[in-house]
This record gives sequence, C-alpha cells and structure tokens, in this order.
Amino acid sequence: MKLSSLKQGRDGRLVVVSKDLTRATDAFFIVPTLQQALDQWEKVAPLLADLAEQLELGSVPSFRFHEHDCASPLPRAYQWADGSAYVNHVELVRKARGADMPDTFWTDPLIYQGGSDGFLNPRDPIPAIDEAHGIDFEAEVAVITGDVPLGATRGEAAAAIRLVVLVNDVSLRNLVPTELGKGFGFFQSKPASSLSPVAVTPDELGEAWDGGKLHLPLLSSLNGTLFGKPNAGVDMTFDFATLIAHAARTRNLGAGAIIGSGTVSNKGADGGPGQSIADGGVGYSCIAELRTVETIRDGKAKTPFLKIGDTVRIEMKDKAGQSIFGAIEQDVARHERKT
Amino acid sequence: MKLSSLKQGRDGRLVVVSKDLTRATDAFFIVPTLQQALDQWEKVAPLLADLAEQLELGSVPSFRFHEHDCASPLPRAYQWADGSAYVNHVELVRKARGADMPDTFWTDPLIYQGGSDGFLNPRDPIPAIDEAHGIDFEAEVAVITGDVPLGATRGEAAAAIRLVVLVNDVSLRNLVPTELGKGFGFFQSKPASSLSPVAVTPDELGEAWDGGKLHLPLLSSLNGTLFGKPNAGVDMTFDFATLIAHAARTRNLGAGAIIGSGTVSNKGADGGPGQSIADGGVGYSCIAELRTVETIRDGKAKTPFLKIGDTVRIEMKDKAGQSIFGAIEQDVARHERKT
Repeated sequence: MKLSSLKQGRDGRLVVVSKDLTRATDAFFIVPTLQQALDQWEKVAPLLADLAEQLELGSVPSFRFHEHDCASPLPRAYQWADGSAYVNHVELVRKARGADMPDTFWTDPLIYQGGSDGFLNPRDPIPAIDEAHGIDFEAEVAVITGDVPLGATRGEAAAAIRLVVLVNDVSLRNLVPTELGKGFGFFQSKPASSLSPVAVTPDELGEAWDGGKLHLPLLSSLNGTLFGKPNAGVDMTFDFATLIAHAARTRNLGAGAIIGSGTVSNKGADGGPGQSIADGGVGYSCIAELRTVETIRDGKAKTPFLKIGDTVRIEMKDKAGQSIFGAIEQDVARHERKT
Repeated sequence: MKLSSLKQGRDGRLVVVSKDLTRATDAFFIVPTLQQALDQWEKVAPLLADLAEQLELGSVPSFRFHEHDCASPLPRAYQWADGSAYVNHVELVRKARGADMPDTFWTDPLIYQGGSDGFLNPRDPIPAIDEAHGIDFEAEVAVITGDVPLGATRGEAAAAIRLVVLVNDVSLRNLVPTELGKGFGFFQSKPASSLSPVAVTPDELGEAWDGGKLHLPLLSSLNGTLFGKPNAGVDMTFDFATLIAHAARTRNLGAGAIIGSGTVSNKGADGGPGQSIADGGVGYSCIAELRTVETIRDGKAKTPFLKIGDTVRIEMKDKAGQSIFGAIEQDVARHERKT
C-alpha cells in the first residue's frame, strides 16, 4: 500500500493513496497519523491494507490526490540515521581531496546520526540562508522501520522494514570541512531533509525490491534537466538490513526510525567514476559528486552548488514509467525570517 | 513547576510533581503526555502551573511519587543535540592524547547530533553488551525547548527554554576512536541516554538559574561514593542560549528539542585539571576525565570504566539540600536479548 501525510498540525493526517497516485482516502478513522500507525503496525497495517484495496476498487469515498498537499510522510521523526552505502561515492570524494580510504570502509558501514525533528515538505523550498554555504541536494532511498531490538540480526532488521521512501538529504557543503574538522560529525552542515510525498510498503515494489535493496534508477533533475539516474540497487555495498543492524548494534531503534542509504552512486562502465548524463553515463545524485569528478578529471570543479531559484526534482519510476513515491520538487529560496 | 512522565505506553503519562518530590497528581485531563504539552505550551502551561499550585496546597487528589515509577520525562524525543560547553573538559581530553585544541573551540560551540528515539528510564540498568566497550557515564544538564526558529538569536533561544533536566549521556569510550576516525561523528559509541525523573521549569530553580546557566553542583556517585560535584555554572564556556542558537543556525528546532551541556567539568583551583574528590577537589562527571587526569599525571589511566554491577547516581540538590530533579540511578547490567 501507499501512505501519505497531508499537511495538518505537527504530524499530518494519514491518507491511503492509490497505486497510480491519483486518488486518496482518509485513514484517520483507523489511525490519525503515520507515526501512530507505525507504533501499532501489527494491528493497523491489515486495516490500512484493506482500505487500500477498497480504494483501488473504488468502493470507498476518495478525493483527488495532490502531491503539493503533502507533508513529509513523517513530518517529524524520532530517528534519522543516514548511511553511506554506496562506498564508491565515498571513495571518489576522498580521492578528489587526495585522501586514501581505509579498507574497512568496504566492510564496516559508515552512518551518521541525522536530525529528525522537522522534515521539509516535499514541495517546500530549501531555505537558503546564504548561497555561500554551498547548498547541495543528495538523492537517496530510505526505509522506515518498526521497533528494532538492540543487537538485531540482519534477518530481524530486514523483517522490521515497514516502508520505503525517497530522501533529499540537503547538505551545506561549505560548512562540512570545518564541522567535520571539529571531530563530532555533521550538525549545521546537515539542515532539514525532505522525504517523498508517498511512503510505500515493500510489496508495492514487486521484483524491484529484493528485501534489502531497491533495483530501480533514482532520477534527479536540476532545473528540468536530468542530472542523474543511477540504479539504487547497483554498487550498494551495504543493503538496508545491514545498515539497520549496524545502527541497532548498541541501541534499540524505535518504531518510525528512518534509515537512509546515502547518496546513490554508480561506478562508470570501466569501474572508474561514473559519467555525466551529457557524456552518456547515468550521472549523479548530488552536485558534489559531479564536482569531484570534475576535480579528478580537470583539476578543478566547475559546476556550482545550488543557487537561489534553482529547482531540484527527485523521483523514481517503475518499469511502466509510473511514479512510485511521487516527486520531491524543491526550489531554493532565500530564507526570510517570519516575524 | 515540576513534571514527570510515569511509565505508560511509548510516551508516558504526564503528572505534576510536588516541589519536594513526595507527591504527584495526574495531568492527563489537561494533556496526556509531556510532548503534547510542549507542542501547545502557551495554552497548557498555565493550566499545569495551576495544578501544581493546587498540589502544593493539597487541594487536588494526589498520590505518593516514586522516582522508580518514572519513564524519562520524554521517553522518546524528536531532537537530542549535545554540546561540549565545558571546553576545559575538551582541552583536557585532547591534552591527554597529545592533541592541540584549536583556539576556535573557545568561540565556536561544539555540538553533536544524538539519537533520541529511546531514552532509558532513570532507574533502568545501562545495558552492557560487552564491558570491553568501555562503558562510561557523563553527567550533564540539559534544557528542553519550545519551537526555535532557524536563525534564532540568543535572546530568542533563551526565551524558548521550557524545562531543565539532568542527563546521563552513556558513552562507549572504546568505540569512540574508530567511530570518530571514520569522520562522521558518534553513532554506536553513544547508545541510549537517560534523563532525570523530573523536569522542572526554570522558575523552580530560583537564583541558581541565570537564564543560561544553572549554578549548582552536579553530584555524581559511583557505587555509593561521591565521584564529582563540579558546579554546572562554573567554566561553562557556552551557555544554553548560545548552544540553542548554534543548533538553530541552519534549521528550526521542534518543540521538545533537548539540548545538552556536555559533561560538566570545573578547572582546578590553579587553573589546571580539577582534583578528584579524594584529593580535595570537586571531582569529575565522567570516568574518562579522571582517566585523562591520571594519564597526564601518571602516564597512564588506572581507574577502569564501568563494570557489570556498578551503580551510577546523578542528582542535583538545592541550597537546602533538597533533590531538584530526582536521581538518575542506574546499574550496569549484562544485556540479555528478550526472545
């Protein structure tokens, strides 16, 4: 089934969305919010699945579904942990700055603790405080879990995957070096992220979902031009089960935990850096990766980070060309303090 | 007023607690949980304050308050960001490993993004997966905020402080070097933390609260012996308003955000490392700091990290010797998977 949270209050109003994303029906009489649904998934998931079936059959009242009415599926969440599962991407970024990558990066997942107290709505602008911050998008896939016990095995972790979403992990690249240099990870350099309008259960993904990876191209566009279409199932060194188990090694994860893949990235056909779309490759899921390739190739990066007025669009289509999660589509807009 | 969440469901049951922590009264008819109270603070805080006044007068039904019935005031939260405001402590730790500290550490706050999807109850054991992880406590003060807008000034940040709590920021010291070496901050090395049984509004702290710092000794005991009593108002380089404003520089903070001080630490009378309680000093708020002092003084650390069976107690008393927040008191117990 497909679920969405329409904008309402702090936690949205849960609706079930049709497979083709054209219609929706209220789920509040079953459970008012997605977080509450995740809190009691075993009880309410079958009821929501029934409602989804009735929606497809046209046997319940429904209304036109508009993606711009959506909040983030979880407008705020208790846990957002983002992996760097496409190690290719990490290696490339380090190569560009002349740093070796320890071999353990291929065997020990890298994950960072993100902030989850407020996600941007999927069609809301990315607030630009200062273009000099080096605003970038990062297109990712993420899963939303049920309760995961401390020490969960990969099998238990896989079984805890409830929903799949897309993410725009907004990053302020020029704040990263100073912040990471302080040794405690990201904070100001990772402001609010965005999730796709719709969250889907793994069964909606059919053969594209193998239990741990999503084997479809992730489409990123910049100002209407395709920027990347790497396959999220390719070059993903750590699958979601592995990322979840890593995150749960010393703690429980609460229902509604969002675990991200990190920027989706595919190697080039020759095993080296991937080519841009213009050069016949699958392109990139963030500007930083293109800049890295430019640095390696030309000695310096030439593509600028996002500017005010730029638009980023992130979506994924099934084999039939149908949008699965709806689209994250965000302008970059100057941040104005509401007074 | 003083608020507590009794163990019930995922988010606890909100009660108002008497100033002397002996009695409590249900607040659920005003608002069921502390998170919901924080979500609509302007509306419900006056009602809760009235109830607190009636509780003191004995004019509402009440029951005996037991700290061991408490969940964390926020059993799960949307944001937990922990500062390192006692820069003295940071300098000391770096000195022990022969690393200089950049001067900017005295002017630019250091903060890490913590995980907030599950806090340990204040009397629950600290789960020991493996003693070799180097289990440590960190006694801290934290504030819980209302909504803080992106770009908030220090004044706005100070005005958003709703509640004050104590924290045991449990740390797995021997997992830290590898994790920080990967460059993305803490994750496995910072498992679930604990908050004090009671959260208090700043006005309950009287003159000890200056709007940004809490000027009272923070008492930590290990196995019944006083380990530290540094004053939380002394040597705090960045006050809470500064920490909150730093955290809100590129993002909104949602109501219920918990912002920690970092391990409370006082310099010695000579401006050098503080002395242990046994040596007549104010001691330390974590074992790592004592080990650091031992390393600087004797060339190697001799005090071990926590072992299974050890008990940590963290509390703070007012000038009259009355416990303000109740006590965090946690055994270290071998983690057993529930099957």
